[in-house]
Amino acid sequence: MTTVYYQGDKGCFSEMAAEKFFGQIQGKGVYSFENVFQSVEEKKKSYGIIPIENTLTGSIHQNYDLLLKYDLFIVGEVKLKISFELMADATAKPESIREIWSHPVALDQCRIFLNRHPQWKVVPVYDTAGAARMLKEGKRKDVGVIAGPQVSSLYSLSVLDEKIEDNPENFTRFFLLSSSSTTGRDEALKTSYVFRVKNIPGILFKCLSIFALRNIDLVKLESRPVIGNPWEYMFYVDFQGSADDENCAGAIETLREFVVYMKWLGSYVYRS
Amino acid sequence: MTTVYYQGDKGCFSEMAAEKFFGQIQGKGVYSFENVFQSVEEKKKSYGIIPIENTLTGSIHQNYDLLLKYDLFIVGEVKLKISFELMADATAKPESIREIWSHPVALDQCRIFLNRHPQWKVVPVYDTAGAARMLKEGKRKDVGVIAGPQVSSLYSLSVLDEKIEDNPENFTRFFLLSSSSTTGRDEALKTSYVFRVKNIPGILFKCLSIFALRNIDLVKLESRPVIGNPWEYMFYVDFQGSADDENCAGAIETLREFVVYMKWLGSYVYRS
Repeated sequence: MTTVYYQGDKGCFSEMAAEKFFGQIQGKGVYSFENVFQSVEEKKKSYGIIPIENTLTGSIHQNYDLLLKYDLFIVGEVKLKISFELMADATAKPESIREIWSHPVALDQCRIFLNRHPQWKVVPVYDTAGAARMLKEGKRKDVGVIAGPQVSSLYSLSVLDEKIEDNPENFTRFFLLSSSSTTGRDEALKTSYVFRVKNIPGILFKCLSIFALRNIDLVKLESRPVIGNPWEYMFYVDFQGSADDENCAGAIETLREFVVYMKWLGSYVYRS
Repeated sequence: MTTVYYQGDKGCFSEMAAEKFFGQIQGKGVYSFENVFQSVEEKKKSYGIIPIENTLTGSIHQNYDLLLKYDLFIVGEVKLKISFELMADATAKPESIREIWSHPVALDQCRIFLNRHPQWKVVPVYDTAGAARMLKEGKRKDVGVIAGPQVSSLYSLSVLDEKIEDNPENFTRFFLLSSSSTTGRDEALKTSYVFRVKNIPGILFKCLSIFALRNIDLVKLESRPVIGNPWEYMFYVDFQGSADDENCAGAIETLREFVVYMKWLGSYVYRS
């Protein structure tokens, strides 16, 4: 079975995203996003999965920085609908809940629901599924956990409320990572590059025009600072097509003339 | 004297940035960035100051979102060199330090220094200067605080070490906010807009070409998600020139045809 590393505990959204891509997996939860990158570098035949963007909170910039730091390839993209449930010990009564545990981003995305219950103490935890595991291990009947729909059955918890998120248009986009550049299973449909431009006026426009000239559709543009060079930026672009396509390859060759650094992050398939 | 609201306590970097812009100010520290926006909306003759970007950690996205939410204007920009000192009670001995208090971002930017002292317990606090105030009020001799160079004299603390940041190329860019659109003191040199584009291929390239056509130099481009519309984005642009310039005004008129929403955030002077 395919081994996939993710940040969080069994039942977390990253694991769900990996299952959406691969079907059944051998999931390995680790503590941090950087641990995911490190694990995939060490175990050559494994994959990693990381969230890169959420439609409510925006890009996860730490993971953009890690894509630059580690030499892994993006080999897949998965989009996942995010929805939250409030769960508790099967014998707990709703009125006995005193504390709510979850990941800070999950707590933030259920703000309206939480504001209706000012008597609850809200406690941030490193992972949504991890909060459920802690609740189960601690046999706490005074604690509610906010986590995804797959978590309650996994930890035999009862669901007190569902779809408690502020905004239903809540999706997270994940990147699947590997130390080899392709899954070898499908044709790549999308490509990501990171580049640092020469410091001349209008340079970003010139770089984007290289793609526009060839009718290559840029679907995402993200910038991050260059450490040690104030007010200079790394630009991350996602575009339609494989780096092997003649048209895309031509664009990349031209781009090379306008940048001081560039790195191919991968050409990959996606599941939406 | 000019009243300026900022997030943090007396002596924080935001206060230093406001003093760099105005000279002497009547500073008012508040708890959150959103409190700064709310205070400036309420007190019509006051200003607010917010960090918008750091050269090591990148854009402060929460403040981009707040610029969209509140109807304030950017009336100034200030860049400030960031440097950190380790300070403690004047009678404390370096070897008696057990805990280090500071803002999470400051702690993150002094990681190499902190890693040399694994015996210290690192405690995140809401503000660098606020950590110094808490240390002083609690008369703690076992606590060191990481804060800016102006803080030690303000709270009569002794400096145990200075320039402890990982990277000396550390600058923060601040926006000065007002409920009226100009300070009336200088000629505006820079303009910021936020816009949301129509959902057609290559639209961002088209929008940037409007500026390129008129030789208007875009100095920053930042994107944020549109809440409730997955995979659509708000683009924030900073460009050289005032919205009153004929050339800039022409660009803005053309841009209007390609966007579904746009908002002028201000035309302003800057201090580097």
